[in-house]
Amino acid sequence: MTLAANLSSKWISVSEPLPHVLHVELSRKPVNAFSAELWSEYGDLLDRITHEGRDVRALVLSSALPKLFTAGIDIADLGSGEPAADAARKSLSTYHHLKEFQHAIGAPERCPFPVIAAVHGLVVGLGIDIISACDIRYAAEGTQFTIKEVDVGLAADIGTLAYLPKITANHSFMRELAYTSRMFSAAEAARLGLLSEVISGGKEEVVKAAIALAGAIAGKSPVAVSGTKRILTHSRDHSVAENLEYTAVWNGAALQTNDIPESLRAAKARSQPAFEPLRVAKL
Amino acid sequence: MTLAANLSSKWISVSEPLPHVLHVELSRKPVNAFSAELWSEYGDLLDRITHEGRDVRALVLSSALPKLFTAGIDIADLGSGEPAADAARKSLSTYHHLKEFQHAIGAPERCPFPVIAAVHGLVVGLGIDIISACDIRYAAEGTQFTIKEVDVGLAADIGTLAYLPKITANHSFMRELAYTSRMFSAAEAARLGLLSEVISGGKEEVVKAAIALAGAIAGKSPVAVSGTKRILTHSRDHSVAENLEYTAVWNGAALQTNDIPESLRAAKARSQPAFEPLRVAKL
Amino acid sequence: MTLAANLSSKWISVSEPLPHVLHVELSRKPVNAFSAELWSEYGDLLDRITHEGRDVRALVLSSALPKLFTAGIDIADLGSGEPAADAARKSLSTYHHLKEFQHAIGAPERCPFPVIAAVHGLVVGLGIDIISACDIRYAAEGTQFTIKEVDVGLAADIGTLAYLPKITANHSFMRELAYTSRMFSAAEAARLGLLSEVISGGKEEVVKAAIALAGAIAGKSPVAVSGTKRILTHSRDHSVAENLEYTAVWNGAALQTNDIPESLRAAKARSQPAFEPLRVAKL
Amino acid sequence: MTLAANLSSKWISVSEPLPHVLHVELSRKPVNAFSAELWSEYGDLLDRITHEGRDVRALVLSSALPKLFTAGIDIADLGSGEPAADAARKSLSTYHHLKEFQHAIGAPERCPFPVIAAVHGLVVGLGIDIISACDIRYAAEGTQFTIKEVDVGLAADIGTLAYLPKITANHSFMRELAYTSRMFSAAEAARLGLLSEVISGGKEEVVKAAIALAGAIAGKSPVAVSGTKRILTHSRDHSVAENLEYTAVWNGAALQTNDIPESLRAAKARSQPAFEPLRVAKL
Amino acid sequence: MTLAANLSSKWISVSEPLPHVLHVELSRKPVNAFSAELWSEYGDLLDRITHEGRDVRALVLSSALPKLFTAGIDIADLGSGEPAADAARKSLSTYHHLKEFQHAIGAPERCPFPVIAAVHGLVVGLGIDIISACDIRYAAEGTQFTIKEVDVGLAADIGTLAYLPKITANHSFMRELAYTSRMFSAAEAARLGLLSEVISGGKEEVVKAAIALAGAIAGKSPVAVSGTKRILTHSRDHSVAENLEYTAVWNGAALQTNDIPESLRAAKARSQPAFEPLRVAKL
Amino acid sequence: MTLAANLSSKWISVSEPLPHVLHVELSRKPVNAFSAELWSEYGDLLDRITHEGRDVRALVLSSALPKLFTAGIDIADLGSGEPAADAARKSLSTYHHLKEFQHAIGAPERCPFPVIAAVHGLVVGLGIDIISACDIRYAAEGTQFTIKEVDVGLAADIGTLAYLPKITANHSFMRELAYTSRMFSAAEAARLGLLSEVISGGKEEVVKAAIALAGAIAGKSPVAVSGTKRILTHSRDHSVAENLEYTAVWNGAALQTNDIPESLRAAKARSQPAFEPLRVAKL
Repeated sequence: MTLAANLSSKWISVSEPLPHVLHVELSRKPVNAFSAELWSEYGDLLDRITHEGRDVRALVLSSALPKLFTAGIDIADLGSGEPAADAARKSLSTYHHLKEFQHAIGAPERCPFPVIAAVHGLVVGLGIDIISACDIRYAAEGTQFTIKEVDVGLAADIGTLAYLPKITANHSFMRELAYTSRMFSAAEAARLGLLSEVISGGKEEVVKAAIALAGAIAGKSPVAVSGTKRILTHSRDHSVAENLEYTAVWNGAALQTNDIPESLRAAKARSQPAFEPLRVAKL
Repeated sequence: MTLAANLSSKWISVSEPLPHVLHVELSRKPVNAFSAELWSEYGDLLDRITHEGRDVRALVLSSALPKLFTAGIDIADLGSGEPAADAARKSLSTYHHLKEFQHAIGAPERCPFPVIAAVHGLVVGLGIDIISACDIRYAAEGTQFTIKEVDVGLAADIGTLAYLPKITANHSFMRELAYTSRMFSAAEAARLGLLSEVISGGKEEVVKAAIALAGAIAGKSPVAVSGTKRILTHSRDHSVAENLEYTAVWNGAALQTNDIPESLRAAKARSQPAFEPLRVAKL
Repeated sequence: MTLAANLSSKWISVSEPLPHVLHVELSRKPVNAFSAELWSEYGDLLDRITHEGRDVRALVLSSALPKLFTAGIDIADLGSGEPAADAARKSLSTYHHLKEFQHAIGAPERCPFPVIAAVHGLVVGLGIDIISACDIRYAAEGTQFTIKEVDVGLAADIGTLAYLPKITANHSFMRELAYTSRMFSAAEAARLGLLSEVISGGKEEVVKAAIALAGAIAGKSPVAVSGTKRILTHSRDHSVAENLEYTAVWNGAALQTNDIPESLRAAKARSQPAFEPLRVAKL
Repeated sequence: MTLAANLSSKWISVSEPLPHVLHVELSRKPVNAFSAELWSEYGDLLDRITHEGRDVRALVLSSALPKLFTAGIDIADLGSGEPAADAARKSLSTYHHLKEFQHAIGAPERCPFPVIAAVHGLVVGLGIDIISACDIRYAAEGTQFTIKEVDVGLAADIGTLAYLPKITANHSFMRELAYTSRMFSAAEAARLGLLSEVISGGKEEVVKAAIALAGAIAGKSPVAVSGTKRILTHSRDHSVAENLEYTAVWNGAALQTNDIPESLRAAKARSQPAFEPLRVAKL
Repeated sequence: MTLAANLSSKWISVSEPLPHVLHVELSRKPVNAFSAELWSEYGDLLDRITHEGRDVRALVLSSALPKLFTAGIDIADLGSGEPAADAARKSLSTYHHLKEFQHAIGAPERCPFPVIAAVHGLVVGLGIDIISACDIRYAAEGTQFTIKEVDVGLAADIGTLAYLPKITANHSFMRELAYTSRMFSAAEAARLGLLSEVISGGKEEVVKAAIALAGAIAGKSPVAVSGTKRILTHSRDHSVAENLEYTAVWNGAALQTNDIPESLRAAKARSQPAFEPLRVAKL
Repeated sequence: MTLAANLSSKWISVSEPLPHVLHVELSRKPVNAFSAELWSEYGDLLDRITHEGRDVRALVLSSALPKLFTAGIDIADLGSGEPAADAARKSLSTYHHLKEFQHAIGAPERCPFPVIAAVHGLVVGLGIDIISACDIRYAAEGTQFTIKEVDVGLAADIGTLAYLPKITANHSFMRELAYTSRMFSAAEAARLGLLSEVISGGKEEVVKAAIALAGAIAGKSPVAVSGTKRILTHSRDHSVAENLEYTAVWNGAALQTNDIPESLRAAKARSQPAFEPLRVAKL
C-alpha cells in the first residue's frame, strides 16, 4: 500500500511527493469555503493518518485552487443554530459545536509528525485558524491575509486568537490586525512572526519549498522529530520548570531508541540512516 | 450628552475626535510626572468611562505636552512610606500601595474597547508600564524610551516586567534594556516588538495615525471587538487548550448577537453597519 | 581576595576584567565537548559563585577556543546507561540523570546577577541549551548555530525546547530549525529573536562588547538588577496577574533598600553610586 | 423512541428505570473483567448517549453480577505491546494506548448529566478508576475495595491517582491504600471521603438508593444541573479566581434560560416543572 | 474613635464585643434577603474596614434575626437584565453584573484579618456562597443548609461552586448536595468538612463561641495572622512549589517584624504581648 | 554493606528493622530542637540515601526521645539575620535561607520510596512542617499538636501552610488551628484528615505499626510504588487532565518493567516476588 492510498476524498486530494511525505491539497471550488462537512473531513483525514499507523514523517498542506488558500468559513453555515431553543440552550449547543470545530482544526497538533502550511493568494478568516495550528508556515510573496471575523461581527474562535499571542512576536501589531480585519501582506505576516519565510514566486514555488523542507524532515529520526514536536507544544503552554520535568520523563524512554546508534552509524558512514516507523495505531 | 462630556479633569483632557472614539491627553506640566494623584485620576477615568456605559469603541492615549509622553513617576512620591513602622509593616503597607498603583495603570485592560497609545518625545520609566497595558502602541519616529527604574535603584513593578516578556519578541534584548536603563529609539522599540509601527513625523502625526486606527476599529461590531480583546488577553495568560475552552463558552452567547446579520447586511449593501452599544454599566 | 580567586579549574578559566564583573571561559580542547564532568563543573562553578557571596554583578560566558563556542555534548557520553536494567529502570535512571544535567545547565537562572553569553564560531546542540538559559546573548557575525539533537536521533532535553518558545519570536521558524537540525547564521538567529545583537568582528569583538555591557550593568544597584532578573524570569512563566502579585510582594521589601537614596544622590551629584553587596551566601 | 432504545450491547445492558434516568449495568461474566473491547464499549456508550441528544438527566452505573462490581482489568490484556519495537517505540505506543484508555474511562466527565456509581461486592483496580470519574459514589455496606495496581507491579494510570487526591480528604490514608494494595471496607472508603454514603443492604439496596437519587436530580432543570456539573469540574482543577471568571462567562448565557421562570412558576404552583431537553447532539 | 464607629448601616449593624474584634450582624427583615443593595453594602463595609486602617484583628459575621442566617438572594432581583438587548449583549451585561456580585461576596478574602461566620437556623443559596468565602465556619446544632440554586433553575455562581471543591472533603457528597438542592443538617455539613464545629445550642451560643475564637485570634501578632491567612489562601490555589516560593518572598520581609521579639518577650514574662496595628490604609 | 551502614550521625540514628526498610530516629536532647545544623543534617541524610542508590523501599521517621517528636525550631536560630544590611538585603538573605530550609524539610518528597512519620508526645511548629512533607502519618493516641508559629509572631513557612490545604480535609478547622496556635489532639488531627490512623498506645506502638506498614510496602515492586508516589505528588499539584498526560508518559516506560511478570508469577506461585533495586544514584 502506498502512503497516500485511499486518503483522497471529495474536496481533499492526497499524494506522496517524496518518501514518507504527504501532500494534502484543499480543493473545494470556487474558494475552498469551509462548510462543516469540509472541516470534519479535514480533521478526520489528519486523525485517520495518525491512527492508521501510516509511516508519514512530514505533511504539506496547501490549496489546489490557483487563486487562493481559502476564503474561510462557508457563510451558509453561519446563522444556523437552534431556532426554538432559549438563549441558554442555544449557547450550550453552540459551545458543543465550537468544541468539535476546534477539535477538527486543531488536528495538526495531534499528528506525531510536523505539518507545514504552504499558502498563496488569499488566506481569510478560518484560513488563519488553520495555519496557526500547523507547525510551520510558508507563504508565497503575493499572499494576502485577513483576520476577517470582526468584519462579520464575531471574535475568531477556532484557534487564531489562541495561537497568535504565543507563536508570533508583536502583540501590538497582532491586536491591530485582529481589531480591524484589515488585509496584510506576506511581508507584514513575516514581520508579525507568523511565517518562517516568504517564498519568491507563487503557488508552485511555495509548495515546492515546503515539500523540500518536508523531505529534509522526513530523513530524520521519527522518534526525535515527534518528541521534539510534542515537547515544543508542551513548552508553549507550560513554564520552563514544568517543561523540563515533562521532557526528562519523555526522554527517559525515548533515549533508549535504536535511532540514536543508527543516526551515529549513518553519520560516520556518510550514508542515509534507516528508521523504523512509529506505531501509534489505534486499537 | 456627548461622549466626552464631563470627563476632563485637572491634568487630563478628553475629547471625541471621531464618533465613538475618545482622545485622552495627559497634560501635567512640565513633564507629565505621575504623582499618586495623577495615576489615581488616570485609572479612575478609564474605569469610569467603562462603568458609565458610554458608547466608546476605541480610545487614543497621548500626551498634550510638546516634548514628551511622560518623564515617569513623580520623584516626590518616592521615599514616602511609614516612618515609624517596622520593616514588616512597611513592606505590607507598600504591597497594598503597589496593588492599587498596578490596578490604576492596568485600567486599559479592563476597558471593553481597545486603547491605543500614541507616544512621542520621551517615554520614561512608568511611561513604559502605561503603554504596555494598552492594546496597541504607535510611536513617532524620534521617540526615545528608557526602562528607567534600575537607574533609581528599583525593579519596575507597575507592569513593564509583567507585560514585556509576553507582548514582545526578544528576551535577550529586553533584558539588556531592563538591566541597563539605557535609552532606546523607536526603531529599537519596533525591533523589540513593542510597536505596531513607527510613524514618520512627530506628535501630531502619531496622534493622527492613532485616531485614524481608532476610527477604523470604531466602525466594527463592539460585540466582536470587545470579545476579541478579552479572548486575546486570556490567551496571553493561558494555554491553547484553556483558551479554546474559554472562547467556546464566550462565543456560545456572543454568536447570538444581532451584529452578525447586521454586518452581513451592510457588507452586502455596501453601507456602514449600525450597532447597538454594549451595556456594561455598573449598578 | 579578588573576585575571581580560586574559581578557575581544569577546563574553565575565570577572570575579573572589570570591577564586579566575572569572565568565564570554556576551554576544553579541541571543541569544548561537554562531558558529564564538564557540565557538572560548569553548574557547580556558577552555584558556588552565588553561594560564596562574592560581589559579582554581571558575568560573561564565552569560549577560550579560537574556532568555536562548543561542539555540544561529548559523544562519548551517549550510549552509557544501565546495561543490565529493564527498560523501566533504565528510563528512571535516565530521568534522574537528565534532571541533574538540566539543573547544571540551568545554573545561570539561579544567579542573582545577569549572565551574558558571547559566542563565536560554532554553537552546536548543547551550546544552544547553554546560551538559552543565560539572560542575554551576543554573537559574532560569522557564528553558525545548529539545534543538532534531531540529527543524532533525539529531542533536545536540557533547555533548548523549554526556552526557545518563550524567549524568541517566531514559532514557525523555530520549529523549522528544530526539526531539521540545519545550520543557521547569526543573522537568522537575530531574526529568530535569539540575540540582542550581531557584533561585527569575531571572538575578541563579541567578548569585548559583552564585557562592556556587563560593566554597564555592574554600575547599577544590585538590589534593582537582581530583582529585575527574578521578576522577569517569573513573568516569563506566569500570567500578568500572577506576576503583578509576586512583584508587589517582592518590592514590599526591596523598596526599603538604601540603593534608592544612594542612586538619587549620585545622580544629583553626577557621581558614581556605591552599593553594598547582596548577601545570599549559603549557610 | 424510549430513552434506552438500542443502547444495550454484548456486556452492557441499559434500561430506563425512571423518566430521564438511565441505568447502565456491566455484565461480563464471570467478574466484569475489562478487556480493551469492554472499556471501548463503555466509553463509546456514554459518549453516544451524549452525542445522540437523548434527554438523559442522570445515569446510574452498577454491575449486573451478584458478587462484585468488577475485578478490574482483564489480565489477558497485560503484556501485549509491540514485541519487535525498541523501548522508545514501545513507550510511545503504550502512551497512545493509555490516552485512549483514559479517554474511555473518563467519559462520565464529558456527560452533561450526573453519573452515579452504585457498587457492591468487590471493586478492584480499574474499578476505582471507573468510579472516581463518576460524579457520585454509593456503596453497599459489605463492599471491599482495593487499589490493586501496585500488587501487579504498576502504578494506576487510568484515573485513580489523578482523581483521589482531589475528590477525597486524607492524603495520608489514601497513600497508605495506594502503596499497599490492601483491601479496604466501605466504612474506610467513607472515611477516606470517597463515598457519599454507605447503604445498608446489598446490590439491590444500593442500586435502589442510587436510582432514587437519580430521579431527584432528573426533576431539576437540566440547564442548572449540567452547568453545576461543569463548573464543579472546572473548579476542581482551577483556582477560585479562575473559576469565578469562568462561571461568570458561563452564566452570562445560562441565566437567560426559561428554566428559571419555569422553576419559579412550578414552585409557586406546587407542581412539577417541565423543562426542555438540552441539545448537545453531534453534527 | 472606637473600632466600630460609623460602620453600622440600614441593614447591617456593627459592634466591638472585644478589643480588636468586630461583630457584623445582618439584619434585613424578615429573612435577610440579599438585594443588590444589600450585597453592595456588605462588600463595601468589609472593604472599608480594611481600607480605613482600623485595627481589626478578627471579625464575626452572623445574623441578627432569630430564625435564620439568610434565605439567600432577594428573588425580586432575578429576572431583571436588559429587556431590549440581544442575547450577546444581555450575556455581557450579566457577566459584568456577576463579577461585581462575586467581588462583593468575596470581600472576606481581601480582609487582612480572619472572618468567622457563625450561623444558625437556615442557610439558603447565597448564604453558602457567603460563608464559603469566610475563613472559618461555626454552626448552631439545628442549622439547616441548602445549595438552593438548582431548584431555581441556575448554577450557583457567587462562590459556592468555586470554594466547596477546595475547602471541603468529599466530592461525591458535595455533588449530591449541589445537584439536588436538598436540605442538609449541621452534622452533615460537618461531615462534608464545611464546619470547624457544630455548636450546641442556638444563635446565642454559636455567636458566643465565634466571638471567643475571634478574641483568641485577636491576641496574636497581626503580622503573623494576616501572613498566615494570605499564605493559606495562596496555597489553596497553587502548587506546593509555587506556594513555598511565594512564602519565602513574603517572609523575607515579615520576619523582620518586631512582633517576634515582642511575642518571645511576653511569653517569657507570661504577659500579654502588645502589637502595633497593620497599616494597609488606602491612599 | 548493610542498608543502614554509615548513615547515623550526631543527632540522627538509622537502623534497618526489616529488609529494605530504614528507621530514622531523631535524637537531639532534650527536645529535638531543630537548629540549622540539624535540619541540614536531616535533609542531607534523606538525599544521600536516595543518591547513593541504597535499595531502600520504605522509611519510618520517628523520635528517639521518650516524651516528644519535636519541640520545633531551635529558638536560638531566630533573630539571626544580617545586622548591618538594609531591609531589602535582609529580606533577600532571609529568602535564600528559607529556600534552603524548605529544601531540606521537603526531602521526603524527593525520595523514590514512601516516608512514614510515626509521632508521639508533642509535635510542635516545625514538627508539623516535617510530617506534612511525608507520605503517611501515624500518631500515638496521646499525641498533642500545635501549629505554633503564630504564637511566636510569624507565619509557618517551611511547608505546613503549603501542604495542609491540599493533604487534609477541612479548611475551616485548619485555619482555626493555624490562626490560634492552640493544641489539638490526635483525634482532632485525625478529624482534620492529617493522620491515617491514631494508634493505641505510645511511642513503641506507633513505631511498631509504622514499621509493619513499611514492611508491607517494601514487599511490593519498587517501580510500582515509586511511580505511584511520583504520580500522586504530581496529581496533588495539577489538574486531572495534566496528570493523566503526565501519567501516560511515565507509564509508557514503566510498564516495560520486569516487575509486572514477576508480580504475576509470584502471585500465581503464592511466593514472595523478588525485585531488582531501582538505580537513581547520582553521577
